[in-house]
Amino acid sequence: MARNIKLIIEYDGTNYCGWQIQDGQPTVQGEITRAIKRVTGKKATLYGAGRTDSGVHAEAQAANFRTDSRLTAQQLMYALNSKLPDDIVVKDAREVPLAFNAQYDARGKTYIYTVYNGSIRPAVQRSYCYFVYKNLSVGLMRKAAGYIKGRHNFKSFATKSVGRANCERTVYSIKITKKGDFIWFEVKGDGFLYNMVRNIVGTLLLVGHKKIKSEAVKSILKSADRRLAGPNIPAKGLRLVEVKY
Amino acid sequence: MARNIKLIIEYDGTNYCGWQIQDGQPTVQGEITRAIKRVTGKKATLYGAGRTDSGVHAEAQAANFRTDSRLTAQQLMYALNSKLPDDIVVKDAREVPLAFNAQYDARGKTYIYTVYNGSIRPAVQRSYCYFVYKNLSVGLMRKAAGYIKGRHNFKSFATKSVGRANCERTVYSIKITKKGDFIWFEVKGDGFLYNMVRNIVGTLLLVGHKKIKSEAVKSILKSADRRLAGPNIPAKGLRLVEVKY
Repeated sequence: MARNIKLIIEYDGTNYCGWQIQDGQPTVQGEITRAIKRVTGKKATLYGAGRTDSGVHAEAQAANFRTDSRLTAQQLMYALNSKLPDDIVVKDAREVPLAFNAQYDARGKTYIYTVYNGSIRPAVQRSYCYFVYKNLSVGLMRKAAGYIKGRHNFKSFATKSVGRANCERTVYSIKITKKGDFIWFEVKGDGFLYNMVRNIVGTLLLVGHKKIKSEAVKSILKSADRRLAGPNIPAKGLRLVEVKY
Repeated sequence: MARNIKLIIEYDGTNYCGWQIQDGQPTVQGEITRAIKRVTGKKATLYGAGRTDSGVHAEAQAANFRTDSRLTAQQLMYALNSKLPDDIVVKDAREVPLAFNAQYDARGKTYIYTVYNGSIRPAVQRSYCYFVYKNLSVGLMRKAAGYIKGRHNFKSFATKSVGRANCERTVYSIKITKKGDFIWFEVKGDGFLYNMVRNIVGTLLLVGHKKIKSEAVKSILKSADRRLAGPNIPAKGLRLVEVKY
């Protein structure tokens, strides 16, 4: 009797070419799929909530796979963890209805982008933040973030040409927190276009450095023109922290 | 005219065979010494406050070297950082009296040891903490730490045979903080024997898991017998956070 198992996964994306399986490349989906095969003896398709890019981390990626293994969800979790490399770990596993699909059923995601805004590059945290030289104005970035909140056509913030696809998404909130030299951008939304979080934060950084005005974000959104928004900043600063169902 | 430059250095010890220079091995002292030679054109001896072991990190290691370079201390810092690998960074540089020696003049050091006390191993933080399975009693460990505080013969907590050397040291404080699954042990002292912090925390973990009583620490100290104290726990959980002069 087939069962459906939902996993919550933490990983350090530094050494992977992203989530999605690719021939001959180390990927997170590839590692977990291989571990499932070693544990259950059978190949399974692993559906992930978010196809994080190369270098992006996850605190709580969600995924599911079907299996006829007799192991309990918790036994599966421990068995998978014993086969996974030390930069990937399953933090939770539970049985869910057969129809559940972690990719298609996701109703919202939360990402955090970490900026290190000091005068000297960080050493220990180098793979988990983006070093931006000094003096970003958090006040101006918060103001600009207010314009991004809500339901919009986010085409200006999607890196790949998205053609005539529907680029409407809802950003529920953007919370900007500063402590010492770190600034965290927590972005919650119902879904994200390709590189959308990195492009949003890249645009906010332009505002924070007073290269564009907070209000400029409104016209960038309206333009639906990728060239007007800020740069796609490095993957290593980004992590997926929650998937809502 | 020779000048004496004091550096404050942050490093990720993961990829180094410790601080101290060794032929044919990557070391932190070796990397910085090489950078100094590239920047100033001359070889210099770099004196470090603490010879951290392989895998141990530093938030603020202190060191000094003499140079007749005409660059200001700040210019030297930026120049060194441009030559150093990305897991080592000079966070501060200033000119100090010629007689200052970072190794011999150190009057106190602070280390923090990080334990991850959850039910599942961590992935992202794997190189910066020691995973200890569940349920350490912070209360019992704090009680035991109280007995370690003060001036004692710490021979039981020194890994290498220290012969007839003076093993008296003063531990000013041991502060144990818990947040979520992390437990931090902040240990301040006037100086530390080889592996002393790791052996102290390794002993406290035995107390936290109720394998020995808090009071046992008193007799372990008195015994001056290394075999009675707890294990030398992994280097990766340790970081040097301050050196006092």
